[in-house]
Amino acid sequence: MIIDVHSHLWAPPELNSNGMNLLGSDGSYSGMEPRIPDERFVEHLQVLFKALDLVGTDFQMVSPRPFTMLHSRGARLVDVWTRWTNNAVAQQVRLAPDRFIGMAGLPQVPGEPIERVFPEMDRCIRELGFNSVLINPDPSEGLGGVPAMGDPYWYPLYERMCEYDVPALIHAASCCNGRETYANHFITEHSIALLSMIKAGVMQRYPKLKIVVAHGGGSVPYQVGRWRAERGSFPDLGKGSVEGRMNQQEGTFDDALRCFHFDTCLHSPLSVELLIKVVGTDAVCFGTERLGSGSQINDATGRSFDDMKPDIEAMDFLSKDDRYKIFEGNARRLFTGLPD
Amino acid sequence: MIIDVHSHLWAPPELNSNGMNLLGSDGSYSGMEPRIPDERFVEHLQVLFKALDLVGTDFQMVSPRPFTMLHSRGARLVDVWTRWTNNAVAQQVRLAPDRFIGMAGLPQVPGEPIERVFPEMDRCIRELGFNSVLINPDPSEGLGGVPAMGDPYWYPLYERMCEYDVPALIHAASCCNGRETYANHFITEHSIALLSMIKAGVMQRYPKLKIVVAHGGGSVPYQVGRWRAERGSFPDLGKGSVEGRMNQQEGTFDDALRCFHFDTCLHSPLSVELLIKVVGTDAVCFGTERLGSGSQINDATGRSFDDMKPDIEAMDFLSKDDRYKIFEGNARRLFTGLPD
Amino acid sequence: MIIDVHSHLWAPPELNSNGMNLLGSDGSYSGMEPRIPDERFVEHLQVLFKALDLVGTDFQMVSPRPFTMLHSRGARLVDVWTRWTNNAVAQQVRLAPDRFIGMAGLPQVPGEPIERVFPEMDRCIRELGFNSVLINPDPSEGLGGVPAMGDPYWYPLYERMCEYDVPALIHAASCCNGRETYANHFITEHSIALLSMIKAGVMQRYPKLKIVVAHGGGSVPYQVGRWRAERGSFPDLGKGSVEGRMNQQEGTFDDALRCFHFDTCLHSPLSVELLIKVVGTDAVCFGTERLGSGSQINDATGRSFDDMKPDIEAMDFLSKDDRYKIFEGNARRLFTGLPD
Amino acid sequence: MIIDVHSHLWAPPELNSNGMNLLGSDGSYSGMEPRIPDERFVEHLQVLFKALDLVGTDFQMVSPRPFTMLHSRGARLVDVWTRWTNNAVAQQVRLAPDRFIGMAGLPQVPGEPIERVFPEMDRCIRELGFNSVLINPDPSEGLGGVPAMGDPYWYPLYERMCEYDVPALIHAASCCNGRETYANHFITEHSIALLSMIKAGVMQRYPKLKIVVAHGGGSVPYQVGRWRAERGSFPDLGKGSVEGRMNQQEGTFDDALRCFHFDTCLHSPLSVELLIKVVGTDAVCFGTERLGSGSQINDATGRSFDDMKPDIEAMDFLSKDDRYKIFEGNARRLFTGLPD
Amino acid sequence: MIIDVHSHLWAPPELNSNGMNLLGSDGSYSGMEPRIPDERFVEHLQVLFKALDLVGTDFQMVSPRPFTMLHSRGARLVDVWTRWTNNAVAQQVRLAPDRFIGMAGLPQVPGEPIERVFPEMDRCIRELGFNSVLINPDPSEGLGGVPAMGDPYWYPLYERMCEYDVPALIHAASCCNGRETYANHFITEHSIALLSMIKAGVMQRYPKLKIVVAHGGGSVPYQVGRWRAERGSFPDLGKGSVEGRMNQQEGTFDDALRCFHFDTCLHSPLSVELLIKVVGTDAVCFGTERLGSGSQINDATGRSFDDMKPDIEAMDFLSKDDRYKIFEGNARRLFTGLPD
Amino acid sequence: MIIDVHSHLWAPPELNSNGMNLLGSDGSYSGMEPRIPDERFVEHLQVLFKALDLVGTDFQMVSPRPFTMLHSRGARLVDVWTRWTNNAVAQQVRLAPDRFIGMAGLPQVPGEPIERVFPEMDRCIRELGFNSVLINPDPSEGLGGVPAMGDPYWYPLYERMCEYDVPALIHAASCCNGRETYANHFITEHSIALLSMIKAGVMQRYPKLKIVVAHGGGSVPYQVGRWRAERGSFPDLGKGSVEGRMNQQEGTFDDALRCFHFDTCLHSPLSVELLIKVVGTDAVCFGTERLGSGSQINDATGRSFDDMKPDIEAMDFLSKDDRYKIFEGNARRLFTGLPD
Repeated sequence: MIIDVHSHLWAPPELNSNGMNLLGSDGSYSGMEPRIPDERFVEHLQVLFKALDLVGTDFQMVSPRPFTMLHSRGARLVDVWTRWTNNAVAQQVRLAPDRFIGMAGLPQVPGEPIERVFPEMDRCIRELGFNSVLINPDPSEGLGGVPAMGDPYWYPLYERMCEYDVPALIHAASCCNGRETYANHFITEHSIALLSMIKAGVMQRYPKLKIVVAHGGGSVPYQVGRWRAERGSFPDLGKGSVEGRMNQQEGTFDDALRCFHFDTCLHSPLSVELLIKVVGTDAVCFGTERLGSGSQINDATGRSFDDMKPDIEAMDFLSKDDRYKIFEGNARRLFTGLPD
Repeated sequence: MIIDVHSHLWAPPELNSNGMNLLGSDGSYSGMEPRIPDERFVEHLQVLFKALDLVGTDFQMVSPRPFTMLHSRGARLVDVWTRWTNNAVAQQVRLAPDRFIGMAGLPQVPGEPIERVFPEMDRCIRELGFNSVLINPDPSEGLGGVPAMGDPYWYPLYERMCEYDVPALIHAASCCNGRETYANHFITEHSIALLSMIKAGVMQRYPKLKIVVAHGGGSVPYQVGRWRAERGSFPDLGKGSVEGRMNQQEGTFDDALRCFHFDTCLHSPLSVELLIKVVGTDAVCFGTERLGSGSQINDATGRSFDDMKPDIEAMDFLSKDDRYKIFEGNARRLFTGLPD
Repeated sequence: MIIDVHSHLWAPPELNSNGMNLLGSDGSYSGMEPRIPDERFVEHLQVLFKALDLVGTDFQMVSPRPFTMLHSRGARLVDVWTRWTNNAVAQQVRLAPDRFIGMAGLPQVPGEPIERVFPEMDRCIRELGFNSVLINPDPSEGLGGVPAMGDPYWYPLYERMCEYDVPALIHAASCCNGRETYANHFITEHSIALLSMIKAGVMQRYPKLKIVVAHGGGSVPYQVGRWRAERGSFPDLGKGSVEGRMNQQEGTFDDALRCFHFDTCLHSPLSVELLIKVVGTDAVCFGTERLGSGSQINDATGRSFDDMKPDIEAMDFLSKDDRYKIFEGNARRLFTGLPD
Repeated sequence: MIIDVHSHLWAPPELNSNGMNLLGSDGSYSGMEPRIPDERFVEHLQVLFKALDLVGTDFQMVSPRPFTMLHSRGARLVDVWTRWTNNAVAQQVRLAPDRFIGMAGLPQVPGEPIERVFPEMDRCIRELGFNSVLINPDPSEGLGGVPAMGDPYWYPLYERMCEYDVPALIHAASCCNGRETYANHFITEHSIALLSMIKAGVMQRYPKLKIVVAHGGGSVPYQVGRWRAERGSFPDLGKGSVEGRMNQQEGTFDDALRCFHFDTCLHSPLSVELLIKVVGTDAVCFGTERLGSGSQINDATGRSFDDMKPDIEAMDFLSKDDRYKIFEGNARRLFTGLPD
Repeated sequence: MIIDVHSHLWAPPELNSNGMNLLGSDGSYSGMEPRIPDERFVEHLQVLFKALDLVGTDFQMVSPRPFTMLHSRGARLVDVWTRWTNNAVAQQVRLAPDRFIGMAGLPQVPGEPIERVFPEMDRCIRELGFNSVLINPDPSEGLGGVPAMGDPYWYPLYERMCEYDVPALIHAASCCNGRETYANHFITEHSIALLSMIKAGVMQRYPKLKIVVAHGGGSVPYQVGRWRAERGSFPDLGKGSVEGRMNQQEGTFDDALRCFHFDTCLHSPLSVELLIKVVGTDAVCFGTERLGSGSQINDATGRSFDDMKPDIEAMDFLSKDDRYKIFEGNARRLFTGLPD
Repeated sequence: MIIDVHSHLWAPPELNSNGMNLLGSDGSYSGMEPRIPDERFVEHLQVLFKALDLVGTDFQMVSPRPFTMLHSRGARLVDVWTRWTNNAVAQQVRLAPDRFIGMAGLPQVPGEPIERVFPEMDRCIRELGFNSVLINPDPSEGLGGVPAMGDPYWYPLYERMCEYDVPALIHAASCCNGRETYANHFITEHSIALLSMIKAGVMQRYPKLKIVVAHGGGSVPYQVGRWRAERGSFPDLGKGSVEGRMNQQEGTFDDALRCFHFDTCLHSPLSVELLIKVVGTDAVCFGTERLGSGSQINDATGRSFDDMKPDIEAMDFLSKDDRYKIFEGNARRLFTGLPD
């Protein structure tokens, strides 16, 4: 079974359209949740089913589409809009429970305590049957001021995740700073989140915490030499002039890195190969975001960029068991609620 | 000859110490430039000579140490401090002209026009004999508000670089946003700079512009699938539901990427290998920042992380000519003033 | 003929849905304008046609739906989104030119010169055949800092309107200050705009300027006693203690008020009656915003609140000619491009 | 007896003059409260007595003159200045207890909890014998950030008002936002306050709360159609396209409106007539602010704008009992401490 | 003749009272300048005449009372209020031209160019016959951001002063930063102004400029050792460790200091003595601010603190000519328009 | 014995140099405290020993050099940097315990509670054997917002000082407001601190508190007339027009002033004389800051400005006992841990 740990809601335009009205009314329209008829939704899903079948994906974790989560647009919007989108995820899951399970969007608001997301998180897990959550490491959406994910600000969320035993996918959302596209902001923020959690020793503090870093861990597997070096000691030649050891944490950087999981959503076989070699096969989960940012046709292959299954199957440095872990095994170890 | 395009000033502590006084006095001490006796400086350089000899580096471009450039600390400081550090670079070069040539730090100040750097840039090139400049893509040092490097804000600088035919190393500096270490901010900012310049078509506008992106291009070579996909077209199945082509620029992303150069300063052979495979041997210059962030001992090899020469020599997918380009040839194509 | 000077775009959800993606991508999706098939749009319009026929409205000026204009969300969005919505207006007009003509939304951005709207304004008038514009008196959408409409900031726009001889409907948009709903912000801002223009003598400066203040002039006709008093002189008794004349403008407040026009979009016969009595029949244009904020059923009458025609017909203080002016004549005097 | 529920302090210039020194010294002059000799104050009051006698007003609630309350100028000033002005009100009342009773100004400061006004409120009611309070719905004076009056921020004040059984006059103060005059800001803010309290159901939560909204309720009675419609249901024709019921509160808007009281301070008979017809005779109290913003001569009548008694007497749709309620009865129902 | 170069307007309370209304209305009451009858003003002046006669002061320069100048409260207020107060100064002068001449308050506004004060400055000098101006070195009134008086921001004002040959009294105004009283802010700002002008060499640039620094030059004469040392050279012992000469200006600090003038408004004989000894008798002008901050009774002497004449007469280190300079001669050298 | 209560750390450049790296890394280099070999430090101290011997100073309180304390640069830096500098002070003391004792720098951070400094304060007193602390009255370093030293914000620090019986030297640090040099900011802030503490009655509240105000009390002894007058009463002539007593505190200003101590660090004999005459010999401690801002040669005397001993010895209004107090006795009364 091919399990895709990273995919987003595929809803008809009525959802976003009402979201625009909600935004325009600054939350006044909170009572006007779109009621999309099941048949309309199912019809809309046909494109997605066809796309998944084409590449052989059997099952997806479905979360709200991050770049429209509006986390930086005020609590008044975030609460309502998160509920609407999670409800739409639940509808998609209900319409095809053999293909999807829900991953909850959280009503994060910059400047407010993280505990504010608990009621919606509880609702999604207990009432809607979701098996995981999506964490936006930067709910300011590029405007700054949010503590990085190693900060105690986030610990109550980690505790609750452990209590529920639900994993999280770290995935940034929109970006309004005028310097980065939202697409690049994902990479920026996933890297910051991962390095910050490693530096703070979050996984040592919460050994049962389950984290998947989307888009292959941002820049970290590629820049890994930098972070390994930080834990090294200086050679004799520098004595007296180059100072001691910069990073005084115990263990190697690689040990720390392997406490996390990473999806394969890199749209490039060479990069996925690097990822697997750096973090190991136990830490990589198949994830493609299909239909999404990689669904375009790669002229070099004639296949979509996010059709990664053949590429992984072709990596001869992987054993059969390695491939099983990546396609299915690691996901089964992390997530509950998956079909047999 | 092994030419290292990425290294920083190795000055005795008197320089930084006076910098601290300059900072503490908010520029009042502008008349108190440190005068370091040549013999004191030469003695201090012995550690560096030993370190370069150990790994076989023959020649370095020397720029101010970026993370102490203070660009976000106010014009009053930046002007004086940049002049002092460039003068110290010039002293280091003067004391060992067979090993070093100067790369100018620029007195960039967020919120002020880029033209403000021209007098110091002119002084460094004309009077001090430097052959290149160091551009900080984020002089706000993590506080935001600076136009990304594709913005017309930067064009006067590109024009002047073309006039002088001097290349630039893109290299971020400090970071004060409390979320990233300065070391990670380099990666963030080099990625933003590169993607922004590509999106704006800067190299098409200034075909003679020479840019080296430090630290292996940030995250871009690893996340390249994402950016390739953005230029792809959607498959038939999406017709009517997934919209047209997101990125309407001409040519492939790889074409655009190869207009830039990249250093090897990644401290990890696997990553350097990925870099070379993605951007090609014509676009990679040997660069190590030695002595610097990678000079610690890698326990796995017993060598410093920044001792990349043996690793590159061991890459069997490279031809002898490829290696020549990386170690020397590409640098010679880009930079003037190199020794024979 | 019943001409409604105040109505908004009635587009299928695909428009707003793409708007949400545009917002989420902070403008990255600028190339993905929705292409709504004519048949889909026409089908969607049937509800509107039925609603207009039901109340006897023959013709409407159609402008973008103000509360989703996103003026405060950054230039990057505003330019694209305004173009998309004006194009959708043009499509609606093209599909039923006997019922609609376009009123242009303007890409206003707080903090930028008003001249920035000229290219889009020109395009709408010259290329799309619109006959009027919609002015948002507060593009900050409740955040403040925008000069009121009597300020010279706006004069270039007034000049261009006079050159084209196109009228404007003053109509506020969203409101993000957390104190007012957008619906009340309309009233706040229309009042500020009107009083500011009167105090500055804008209509004396631009005698050919044509302004319709939406929603019956905000609070001004009701609070008119306050503004009349301001121009009065103090009685003898106050000599020496109550100071001179506060407002030193020439003419009465009523003279000034009658240089403007007002729509009947008040959803209450008593209020429309007050409006007509205060500003006179020459200054009132039939306007209902149908389908919109008044289309709900009034249980007291069994008709929609915005079904104002019977109420105006029932006002016995109006002559037949008065009614003609309100329903049609005043609009014909102001607007060009109306059907015979 | 004609009871005027809305009037302001009529003090000699020494009060304001010392206020200016207090302001200039940023509160340093807190020990220099003006001591105005009674004979000086009485002499100054003669103009007011003459003005009241001229129009037949028997009795007034006297509050500080709102536009000089300085609420946005810092706690240091507000505390002292409010005490000084309440003391001057007390002096005016003491000098003519058959004509006046005190309404307390409150030392409101934006950004500080509303409980901060309690000591001065207590002092005014217990020690100075005042029978009501003046609430400024926007102590930021146009700068924003103050929760609207439906917000729980204000509930402790409502509770204390209920405990004391003292009514409040909602009356805004100065305005420093550069867009509105203070006079228009009153209208803006009274509308926001009223709509916010209705939306939050404040009167349902505090059924014994007594609120008079000054200046005839701002824009609300005129724009009432808008707010009635918001509670309506959509007609059949809109099914499927126009969404459900926007406002889900119980009861009609008119029911909600009639839980409040309104003064007649509109300076225009037509508007007072609209007010009475919309909110009913039980909800209207005679209030003129005389001497104040309406004391100028209306050239059309030869009387002051604020001389509303003859106009109300001339309204033939009112019964004798209706008039009694407006002139006296409603005030007696709301306020204690009135003379027989 | 005893000439007092430092005194402020002594107006009846009507002026400040109207100022408070102007402030409360945020400038709306601009048409309501107080018209104080001459007899009322003359009666009010009797206290001042008595106070001056008591200490033997013959003549005063009269400027607006600085701490109520409202410079930080917005251009709308500053323009009107400055005109009103200068007019009141002119009235005081007109009523007693043998005792007073006017010193113009300037409508300074932080963040606006200094040229904005020229029209009012011109009016005061040309139309009202004033002979000098009062400069507030900190129109932000403690909020920061105003360039110090050595900055080119101020040069156009210096040029115009030279053209008119009018001196300025440097005198700060209110202070709203919550840390200093306005009275201490005077000392802070006069010191900053003086040191900044010295450091920038303003008097070398404008040799004809005439500046009197109020309140005895702030802290500078007392802290003069600090500023003298800054121009000294380091002794041999520090060679190599203590750096060069900090201040590279030519001439001694004392030379620079003596280009300015200082008033005696220190309310303490010992301090006036220090002042005279540090800056010399040519640089000191009699100034007392009477009636003002020093008019209280000194229990130690039974005289007012600002009754400095006997103290200066008692200083035996002064010659008769020295005393003449201080009491009269220096003022005559600086100011025009003085009585014989 | 000549005891100098005011001197600063004299460390080799390695300290500041590492401080610059700490700053550039925004605290990442927290593990890289410089380890300066004792012999290197001792060699560096020879210049200081020679300088002290030359002027006859026997013993100094040594505190961090204030203008490089970086208090406004963020908690991340302040904590580490304060620890490093206090450790360097301790090293200097350890290397010459007969000449020095430590005065602790405190890790003050604007906007954080003062209690944050307690752990480092405790460490310095208990572990490092320091006998006093250095208080920066403005850790914002000129940016504002810090409560003045009379504010309850500071009381927990005063309490802890009393518990330990350690005195404090009030000494400002850097200044980043662009208007003042740091050197003048000292004077500004010491004046504000002293006046604020007097106005708040801090010494009455904490009678055992020991405070030395550096640099001779800023401007206060010179401007003392101003503050004395504030406590005076107005003469008969002002009755009715000049208001009551401004300052209602008990006792004279001089009484209040003499609860504090002041150093002689004024670099000018005339000013020291004024200081002693104003505050009395019991309140003055010898303090020179040597080597520091006054160590330059005074051409008029051929001695350093900070060589104040001969000047004080030459003041013939002082008795032998007075001189003993100033040079030694007052310090012994205040400070513990001094050598016999």
